[in-house]
Amino acid sequence: MEESGTTRLEMFSDGIFAIAATLLVLEFTVNTRGNAPSLGYQLLHQLWPAYLAYATSFLTIGIIWINHHHVMETIVRVDRTFLFINTLLLLVVAFIPFPTRLVAHYLQIPGERDAVYAYGATLLLMAILFNVLWAYASRNGRLISEDMPPVKVRAVTQAAAVGVPLTALILVLATWTPVGGVIFACAISAFYLPGAARFDR
Amino acid sequence: MEESGTTRLEMFSDGIFAIAATLLVLEFTVNTRGNAPSLGYQLLHQLWPAYLAYATSFLTIGIIWINHHHVMETIVRVDRTFLFINTLLLLVVAFIPFPTRLVAHYLQIPGERDAVYAYGATLLLMAILFNVLWAYASRNGRLISEDMPPVKVRAVTQAAAVGVPLTALILVLATWTPVGGVIFACAISAFYLPGAARFDR
Amino acid sequence: MEESGTTRLEMFSDGIFAIAATLLVLEFTVNTRGNAPSLGYQLLHQLWPAYLAYATSFLTIGIIWINHHHVMETIVRVDRTFLFINTLLLLVVAFIPFPTRLVAHYLQIPGERDAVYAYGATLLLMAILFNVLWAYASRNGRLISEDMPPVKVRAVTQAAAVGVPLTALILVLATWTPVGGVIFACAISAFYLPGAARFDR
Amino acid sequence: MEESGTTRLEMFSDGIFAIAATLLVLEFTVNTRGNAPSLGYQLLHQLWPAYLAYATSFLTIGIIWINHHHVMETIVRVDRTFLFINTLLLLVVAFIPFPTRLVAHYLQIPGERDAVYAYGATLLLMAILFNVLWAYASRNGRLISEDMPPVKVRAVTQAAAVGVPLTALILVLATWTPVGGVIFACAISAFYLPGAARFDR
Repeated sequence: MEESGTTRLEMFSDGIFAIAATLLVLEFTVNTRGNAPSLGYQLLHQLWPAYLAYATSFLTIGIIWINHHHVMETIVRVDRTFLFINTLLLLVVAFIPFPTRLVAHYLQIPGERDAVYAYGATLLLMAILFNVLWAYASRNGRLISEDMPPVKVRAVTQAAAVGVPLTALILVLATWTPVGGVIFACAISAFYLPGAARFDR
Repeated sequence: MEESGTTRLEMFSDGIFAIAATLLVLEFTVNTRGNAPSLGYQLLHQLWPAYLAYATSFLTIGIIWINHHHVMETIVRVDRTFLFINTLLLLVVAFIPFPTRLVAHYLQIPGERDAVYAYGATLLLMAILFNVLWAYASRNGRLISEDMPPVKVRAVTQAAAVGVPLTALILVLATWTPVGGVIFACAISAFYLPGAARFDR
Repeated sequence: MEESGTTRLEMFSDGIFAIAATLLVLEFTVNTRGNAPSLGYQLLHQLWPAYLAYATSFLTIGIIWINHHHVMETIVRVDRTFLFINTLLLLVVAFIPFPTRLVAHYLQIPGERDAVYAYGATLLLMAILFNVLWAYASRNGRLISEDMPPVKVRAVTQAAAVGVPLTALILVLATWTPVGGVIFACAISAFYLPGAARFDR
Repeated sequence: MEESGTTRLEMFSDGIFAIAATLLVLEFTVNTRGNAPSLGYQLLHQLWPAYLAYATSFLTIGIIWINHHHVMETIVRVDRTFLFINTLLLLVVAFIPFPTRLVAHYLQIPGERDAVYAYGATLLLMAILFNVLWAYASRNGRLISEDMPPVKVRAVTQAAAVGVPLTALILVLATWTPVGGVIFACAISAFYLPGAARFDR
């Protein structure tokens, strides 16, 4: 029964993660007017902000999906407060396609700093909510299985904690170089993903 | 077999809930024309109706998802009438992104009252259909497990019943202050969600 | 193993059904230009083709989902031909949002007959493919469980067979009255759905 | 536990496959301006690139979904490198709706070669990543069940290997005839799909 409760919660959450990741593709647009540069030129030279934003957001959603599963593996039951925080977390995850579209559109034109701020702020909020979710679940072992080895619990705590300063750095970098902020976000996702993927242990 | 019937129905319904919630993000648009206010200004000062509508609809879908699960937990089988009412309910849930977009666009400009009416009417219809679904399932214990404690059945009945007058109030409020109607809708979602989340009991 | 094969196929198919149904909402648009009729007028008097098309397609997808499950309940394994026909069926189901959008846009303006032809042809193709799928699975009991009572097999055969002439009638009606064709499509969905929903037996 | 790890990974991947396939329908647009050709003319004579692109991409996603399941059937556990490669593969699959839209729009007008290049390059990248994923999983039987018959492992290897040269041929053909490249892509999907569908063995 309890088990079944977390299973359904995982399925709903996984649905949100998968759909948010797939909706990212709707950000891609090309200029089809007569006086536009050739399609090849646009694809190779003008769309790289869109590629960068797409890859960054897709990998980031992949990481949060993996980390979310580590949480769900560790806990044995959910309560109403957990479910409330989880809904807020999903609300932010499902929002990601919007700032991603902003970055894809505004990078290299006026407004790029604001776009990257919106993007970084969304990722930061997501990282904070993930920590709140985990802190609530793990405080005094509230929702955690008794059999769970402490080393595993600590691993999730560390994975959660490292997300906040790293995402905050995106915002700091963006004040100086918006493009650099997004590249940094992409880099931490790409490096972090293999480390986050502890399905084998 | 019967069990399996409800499992598949849950998965289909969960899919609709998750997709409807995630499609909400497509309502967000910014003005990218040359004479538009700066992106930062738009994000901070002009997009709040969109944020409000997004949060309200996301939390509302979260609540109906939780309540729907309480129904599915309580019943042991489905029949064709139940499935028909459930399809009508999902039809209304999947419709929510449209009035949400209307609220996001029209709040604070001419047409806002009509937008909030459309929004409130959709939520009211959803609340009514949820009550019809539950009344059909629980009348004389028609689809309910014999083992189910009456206190649990009454809890679902109360959760369902309270939705109709609360949503009707949105419409009443909107005649006087459309913005107030949406803020009220958001507030009841935010307060109601933790209460609705009875996965632990 | 075989069981697991059909489970995964059901989940993939259910995903397509649920997403196609939820994407229907994207057809709704309102005229936001300065000289447009008021939002309330548009919602009450001009958008009814969109409501009609939405309800018709949503209920139709609901029916095909239910019928598809009856097929999956009846068979014990899938082979590559079955999977190929099933993919073609899903291809048509996932296409439904496009002719739905056409009906929503063109009803009552020039082009309405073509729009309803496209809509009816899509539903007809779906009905035919469903029959092909079922004929392949049930011919000589090819993929059907030995324990399956013949009465259940005949029920699925009848449910499948009735779809083709009914959908063909939509096309015939549309030559005379396009609006009537869509209303007829909606009516058969609404009447057929409760009958199709044999989850209780 | 390990089992459960692969189950969840399959569900997340299946979600991406199903959503990417269903989002393809959003590529369809008609010209609704007053001076446009009649809707019937557009549907019958001008939209065939969109139909072709839609069918090709839908069948291709169907094939990669089936092949992905063959991989998941063969392996008994996943590790972080596997998960990383899988995320990159999903990133490319979720991207397919964009080049599909380009092909639908640009075929038969200037820019068609670039559009088909983008399309073929996406499919080639997907085929390569699928081979990398499988090579990683099967190298020295790293993630493969000990009970798995070698003939089954070889079948997956062959199905994976044949994808790369076939997709590369699309790019070669496109330099000479872009339309021919897409027709070839559609043909190999249609022929390959029944062969890929080895759920019965």
